[in-house]
Parts: sequence; structure tokens; C-alpha cells
Amino acid sequence: MKSLEEARALDAADPLRAFAAEFDLPDGVIYLDGNSLGPPTRKALTRLREAAETEWRHGLIRSWNDADWIDLPKRAGAKIAKLIGADADDVLVCDSVSVNIFKLASALIEKRPGAVLAVDAGEFPTDQYALEGAARMTGAPLIRLEAGETPENAVLIRSLVHYKTAEILDMAAAERIASARCCDIVWDLCHATGLVPIDMTRAGARFAVGCGYKFLNGGPGAPAFVYVAREEANTMTQPLSGWMGHAAPFDFASDYKPADGAARFAAGTPPVLSLIALDAALDLFEGVDLSALETKARALGDCFLACVRDLGLEPMKAPSRRGGHVCLKAGNGHQIMQALIARGVIGDFRAPDLMRFGFSPLFLSFEDVWNAGRALADVLSTEEWKRTEFSRRGKVT
Amino acid sequence: MKSLEEARALDAADPLRAFAAEFDLPDGVIYLDGNSLGPPTRKALTRLREAAETEWRHGLIRSWNDADWIDLPKRAGAKIAKLIGADADDVLVCDSVSVNIFKLASALIEKRPGAVLAVDAGEFPTDQYALEGAARMTGAPLIRLEAGETPENAVLIRSLVHYKTAEILDMAAAERIASARCCDIVWDLCHATGLVPIDMTRAGARFAVGCGYKFLNGGPGAPAFVYVAREEANTMTQPLSGWMGHAAPFDFASDYKPADGAARFAAGTPPVLSLIALDAALDLFEGVDLSALETKARALGDCFLACVRDLGLEPMKAPSRRGGHVCLKAGNGHQIMQALIARGVIGDFRAPDLMRFGFSPLFLSFEDVWNAGRALADVLSTEEWKRTEFSRRGKVT
Repeated sequence: MKSLEEARALDAADPLRAFAAEFDLPDGVIYLDGNSLGPPTRKALTRLREAAETEWRHGLIRSWNDADWIDLPKRAGAKIAKLIGADADDVLVCDSVSVNIFKLASALIEKRPGAVLAVDAGEFPTDQYALEGAARMTGAPLIRLEAGETPENAVLIRSLVHYKTAEILDMAAAERIASARCCDIVWDLCHATGLVPIDMTRAGARFAVGCGYKFLNGGPGAPAFVYVAREEANTMTQPLSGWMGHAAPFDFASDYKPADGAARFAAGTPPVLSLIALDAALDLFEGVDLSALETKARALGDCFLACVRDLGLEPMKAPSRRGGHVCLKAGNGHQIMQALIARGVIGDFRAPDLMRFGFSPLFLSFEDVWNAGRALADVLSTEEWKRTEFSRRGKVT
Repeated sequence: MKSLEEARALDAADPLRAFAAEFDLPDGVIYLDGNSLGPPTRKALTRLREAAETEWRHGLIRSWNDADWIDLPKRAGAKIAKLIGADADDVLVCDSVSVNIFKLASALIEKRPGAVLAVDAGEFPTDQYALEGAARMTGAPLIRLEAGETPENAVLIRSLVHYKTAEILDMAAAERIASARCCDIVWDLCHATGLVPIDMTRAGARFAVGCGYKFLNGGPGAPAFVYVAREEANTMTQPLSGWMGHAAPFDFASDYKPADGAARFAAGTPPVLSLIALDAALDLFEGVDLSALETKARALGDCFLACVRDLGLEPMKAPSRRGGHVCLKAGNGHQIMQALIARGVIGDFRAPDLMRFGFSPLFLSFEDVWNAGRALADVLSTEEWKRTEFSRRGKVT
């Protein structure tokens, strides 16, 4: 992409261009961080207001039934199921990614005494931390793997799209290797769901977790999801046995009896307001072609890389199949990113030296990418990053 | 209370009467279920809208810093700390009650091999379920106790205010007995926080969980809280090690290193929208005299019992010190409650035969209670409960 005109021509030919109108992004912002926190859809904002001001305020406790809050975790789960090639009943929205990894890993080890827990040493940190907790609780050893390695007799966590490299793994191939080595893979779909076509069923993948606040646009800290294939769920006892995962929570029985299927992976009462925002955001994906999303995200990223090729920044090694973001290495990356953000071009930074740019295909245009590339060139040529004030506080960026 | 005039006189003398204006309850409703789901304050609704439409929509990812989302769990925790006599740093808002019980019980058993887990057989079900999970994971036996019994060498869960009887326990006395028997008590403060004066520090109580959606009015499924006394927290390793409980989450280190103090009880990314509603709701308690809340709730309950004394319903045995609700037994209690709800008098039902009426003192008047008593008398005398249609679906009532 060598000119604004070329960018505009690409936009004119973009089959997804109408979706941008479903969002209401602030003026003066080019948002390249939808892979970290998706922006709200108009519908999600409307629905959240209605949930608070009508369902909570007027309906009060009655809304658990009348507004069907009680089934939200399943309803939202069924919407996500369509995006990952799962049966509607096999996905449940609940808790956080960290907590859901703990549930799945612990329950699988309980089923398989003697198996080890395993994770790539470069995997997203909270996945590793959650496994540390599961290892301590179950007594199973936790081993760190080289990227892509598959051990014998293990329960392992693996991201379908890596949070740094954006590499998209071949799920079916990984499952074949895992099967031959007696491994169960728990897929981390955080950077994949809502961006990449996924077919858990066809790949023979039986376990997954994922988050609601990246490409699904479910809102800050939106609840996460868990997927467990039907034939597995009823053989598993997850450790966070709370009343929402009980077969009959309103019988108030003293003994825990898990619900049928993935529903047993619920624990306590879900955060309804956050859950409703996610549930509404998911409606945007109704009828969307996920292949088109992946294709456009890739094209946006390629255009960005072309725009910034001559700026002296080092792109991370390009994977053959890449998800929704690209990373550029720079020793002063944090300051450069702060200068970009001060200009309204919002990406994020991953220690120690990666500037990460996300290309969420539902609201970004090629013109946005062109302008972002120009902004980065300006920030570098003017050296304004040396003069930008920035916070050194902890960041979820 | 024998007349509407008497009720109005009590209202005129009520030092808390001004608080009702902070709420915006629907017309035609007398809400006797604030002990199950508190209604929204005007401030919480305004704050939630601002969080969604300004912080999320305009601020996007920047709001983690600029709107200080990152410290919300601690900020809201510090507000709750004031209500329970704890140091500000020792309370954290996170996850659900069920999940938090699992964390505390598992971490305490890990510290104390040989101890058993224990819970009253009549304790709220999810507390029992969460302990079942902790027992399976830790290998500690789980024993069910007679009400009020304290075993030797145990980690036990105990509600300060019981969800059926509303009995308020003597926390300091229970701690003295527990101490003599080498027990750690994890207090369940769900029905107590925001209603009853609590002084964890003075009582020598070191562990607690509680929920945000009852008397704290934090919204449906509002996140829960955990309290761990400072001198204990750093000796404990909770099993749900997620990045938000890491000492430096944004260093992206591979190994988990728990944060200092109660902050280590965080796990994954919190549901910010739900958390903001809770945080805003908590501001209502700034400067409120908790003794006045308990006194008024008790008085409202006593007035209600006086109003309905001659209706042939059996009140549960009255505890000497009672929290925010009263229960009436009736074989047809479910239908009677549905008929009351159809009239706008909203209480709830606890299987098999308890009608439960909550008296949240911040928004209810004695006149409300008088009218609720009249409505119950009418429903019984007209037998309209035999004709009321009602749902038989699962209910969070």
C-alpha cells in the first residue's frame, strides 16, 4: 500500500466495510488495540443501559426470570459456540480465563493421575500462572516446553493465536500429535475467537477457554468462556463447585451434584451487567464470515508493515498464518507507543521491547492503517517520542 | 404497629429516612428483597453509564490507567473494609463468593496439613459446595456440623447472619472458641455486610468472604470480596494464581510471584462494568451509622411480624439478635409469594416452605411494611394465591 488513494480503493472493495457503522469510536482516534480491549458496539451500549435502568431498576430480582438473566451464561455461550465450531450446549460463559484454565487443568489431571501439566515457556503469563496453581493443588508436575513441543501423557495449554507472534497454529495437526502422545490440549482461544475460523469439532479439539473482551468486544474484563465437548464434560468434576454449576441450584440441597454437560463448569453468581454487554456484543457476529475477518486482518497488517517498512523498526518473524496483530521491536518502543497514543493512534506495548498493533477487521479501514503508518513515520522522524510525557504506572496495554 | 398512622409516626422519627431518595424504585412496588438483590442507587446508574459511554467508548484501553480501572478491586475493597472493621488494604473485590471460599479454604488447608474442613449442615448451599471442591482438591476431609458446633483442628465456614434464620452470631465469642480448638473461621458476610456493624479486627477474625449484590446494592452478580488479615495474607498461597494477583503483572514474567497482602487473592481480569456499579453503590455508606441500619432493619422486621401475627403463618424461631430478614413458614408459601409479587410486594421463597421478607433499611419505610402486611393479609383472606399464575422455572429468588 503506497498511497492514500490505494488505501481508499481497498476500502471501497472491502466486503466488511459496513460493520464500522455498528461502532461509535471517538473522533481523532485510530484504534489498533481491539485485540486487547474491543470497543463497544452501539447495541452493547444500548443493551447495557436497558439492563441497568429497566431490568435492574424496574425488574429488580424478578429479572432473573423475566429478563432471563439466569440463562445468560448459556445463551452467550451458544453464540460463541457458533464462532468456534462447537455445539451450542458445549460452551458456557463464566469467570475469567485464569479461573477457567484452573478448572479444566485440575479436572483433567484428576481424571488422569500420572499425567503432567505442560505449557510453552513463551505462553501468555496468566496461562502459566494458572497451571502453577493447578500443579500445586493436584500434585502433578508442571513442565515448560519449547515452542510447539508436545510431550507424552500431558495436559497442556496452547494458544491458537500467540499473543506476541500472532502465529495461528494448525489445530487439527496439533490434536493429531497430541492424540498420538496421550495428551489433552486445552486451547486458549483469547486472540482467536471472533477473528479466525475455528472448528473445534472437526479438529477433534475437546477443551478450550477464551476471553470476551478482545475481538468479541464484550467490554473491559468481560466474562470468559469455557468449551468442553459433550462426551468429556460429564466425565469431569471441576474443582470450583459452586451453586450455579449445580444440577438444581434452587433446591438448596446440601450436597453438590454437578449439572449436565458444560454447565457444570459454572461456579458462583455471574456478573450480570458485564455479561449482558458481552451477550449484546456477540450479536454483531451473526452471519459474519470468519474467513473474511481473518483475511482482512491479515491484509490490514500486511499494509501496515508495508507502510512502515523503511522506518528502521524490526518486525517480528512473520508466521505463515498470522492472526490479528503485528509486533515491531524497538528499544524505545514504550516511549514511541506513548507518542503515538498522544496522537490518537492507540496500540500497546509488551515488555521488554514490542510495540503491538492490532487490526480488528470489523471497525478498521485501510485508510486508518495508512494514517497510522504515517503517524508512526512522523513520530520517528520528528523524534517527538523523546518529548512525550508518559505514565510509568502498571498498565493493561 | 397497629395502624398506618403509627407507621407514619415511626417514619417521621427515622434518622435514616433521607436515604430513600438516593434510590429510584419503581412505582407500585414494595421491595422486600434487597437482601437478595439490592436496588440500584441513582449514583450507581449514572456511574455505570459514564463508565460505558465515556470510559469504555472514548477512553478505550487507556481507561485502565486514565480511569484507574486497574485499582478498582482495591478501591472498592477499601470501601468495604470500613464496613467490616478491617484495614483498607486487607479487603479485595474479586470473583464470586463460591470462588473466594475455595481460595481461602484451599490456601488454609495447604498451610495446615492434618486439619479438616467443616461447615454447618444448614449453611448456605454454595458454601458447602465450594468446600466439597476444596476437600477433593486438598484431600482434607469435609465434615458437616450441627448448628454452632466447633470441632478441633479445622478450617470452617460460618455465616455471620444466617440466610434463613437471620440469626447474627457473636463473632468475637466464636473466634475465642475457635482459637481454643485450633480452628480458623472463614466468615461468610453475605447477609451481614452493609447491615450489621462488624469489627473483624477487634473480634480477632482474620478471614472472610462476602457478596456485593445484597445490602451493598452493587448490582446483579456484583463481584464478591475477600478479607485476609495482613499478618496472614503473606503466609498464604491461594490456588487461583492469575495475573491480576501477580506482584508485577505487566512484567510478563513466566513465574508466578504473588502480590503483597490481600491483593494476592485476585485471579483473572475483573468484570469492570459490574465492578464500577458496585464501587459507586458503596459510596452510599460513607458516614452511615451501621448500628442504625441494624436497629432499623430489626424494627421493620418486628413491625412486619406484628402486622401479620394473626394470619396463621408460622414465623421461624426468633433469634436473640436478628439481621435483615424474617421468614414465615407456609406449605403454600411459593404460591402465596407469587400472589404477593403480582401485587408488587416482592419477597422471595426458600425451599421447601419459607417465605422470606427482607428489610433493607436504606430505602424501606415503616409505611411500606404496613402496606406489605396488609397485602399479605388480603392475599390470604381472598385466597387469590390459589389463582395466581406463576413460573415454575429455576429462580434466583
